Amino acid sequence: MVKKNIGRSFNIYPMPVVLVGTMTDGKANFMTAAWVTKLHSEPPLVGVSLGLRQHTAKGIRQTGQFSISYPTVDQAQLVDYCGLVHGYEEDKSAHVDLFHGALESAPMVRQCPVAMECRLTQTIELPKDYFFIGEVANVYATEAVLTEGVVDVAKLRPFVLTMPDNSYWALGERVGDAWSMGKALRKPGE
Amino acid sequence: MVKKNIGRSFNIYPMPVVLVGTMTDGKANFMTAAWVTKLHSEPPLVGVSLGLRQHTAKGIRQTGQFSISYPTVDQAQLVDYCGLVHGYEEDKSAHVDLFHGALESAPMVRQCPVAMECRLTQTIELPKDYFFIGEVANVYATEAVLTEGVVDVAKLRPFVLTMPDNSYWALGERVGDAWSMGKALRKPGE
Repeated sequence: MVKKNIGRSFNIYPMPVVLVGTMTDGKANFMTAAWVTKLHSEPPLVGVSLGLRQHTAKGIRQTGQFSISYPTVDQAQLVDYCGLVHGYEEDKSAHVDLFHGALESAPMVRQCPVAMECRLTQTIELPKDYFFIGEVANVYATEAVLTEGVVDVAKLRPFVLTMPDNSYWALGERVGDAWSMGKALRKPGE
Repeated sequence: MVKKNIGRSFNIYPMPVVLVGTMTDGKANFMTAAWVTKLHSEPPLVGVSLGLRQHTAKGIRQTGQFSISYPTVDQAQLVDYCGLVHGYEEDKSAHVDLFHGALESAPMVRQCPVAMECRLTQTIELPKDYFFIGEVANVYATEAVLTEGVVDVAKLRPFVLTMPDNSYWALGERVGDAWSMGKALRKPGE
């Protein structure tokens, strides 16, 4: 396959979609984010990149805490709304049934089947974004998405974001088993 | 929805899947990674978290360069293989048709329709992982996945990884338009 240089603007194909919750200026605030990744297993560390001027970034810097809630396809409209509107313009929490866990300043979204509260451990300052690294304190889930006590993705029904087509997609066909389907390519005898 | 505390071990639901390419000890090496995110638009910055002892991490530290290739569902077996095998045990590049762009030490995977070469800008040391931040120098794509010069996700057919069920999934039904379907929840007159 011959490749063409298409510049240096890029996306991750596809991106997860989460709601980041904070207490900003003493009020609960929620924002949609797709620039999010796991960083480390033990301690469990998550990273999220947010614009320097975001109301959510302000809250994380004020309190040192934040939450990440994982929506299901049923919350796509709510998630999109939380990505369209700035927290300093409109109180988004009016549409959110929020709950708290052990941390004071990490409100989570009850409509989302899985949510986790985090303590900020490190902030990487980039030219226009902060990359916040948080240690997960607790993960909360509704019984309906668990199988034998762990999150069952088929029950969670997450969705992803793709750009530049700006679309949300549900998961589709199962392609195969991870840490298994590649074994056929290993050298014989290994 | 009543929530249950299920501990602090977590995943991102779901995760993108990419191949990270390096020159390690002077040889091309490829590794599957799912802990990857966009961090910043201009300059375009990407971040990937890799185990301290990975052959790929060694290569990035040696050369200050790496690549990220985006597979399509057709490469799922190759991707899984590159995640199963350590580069210091087996030369994975035997299964890879590699190509180079402008950078000397960022070999990319020709089988993958989209790939990008990156210069390391920052390394965050975590207890057991490095989080590498790279600036994208160039993105390369095959004409077959482009529509009017930009990557068309429907043509790319990416897949995602979910854990703890260890499954790869294709994208399925389109749920809706991002930056649009949430407008209905805005306050009237805004």
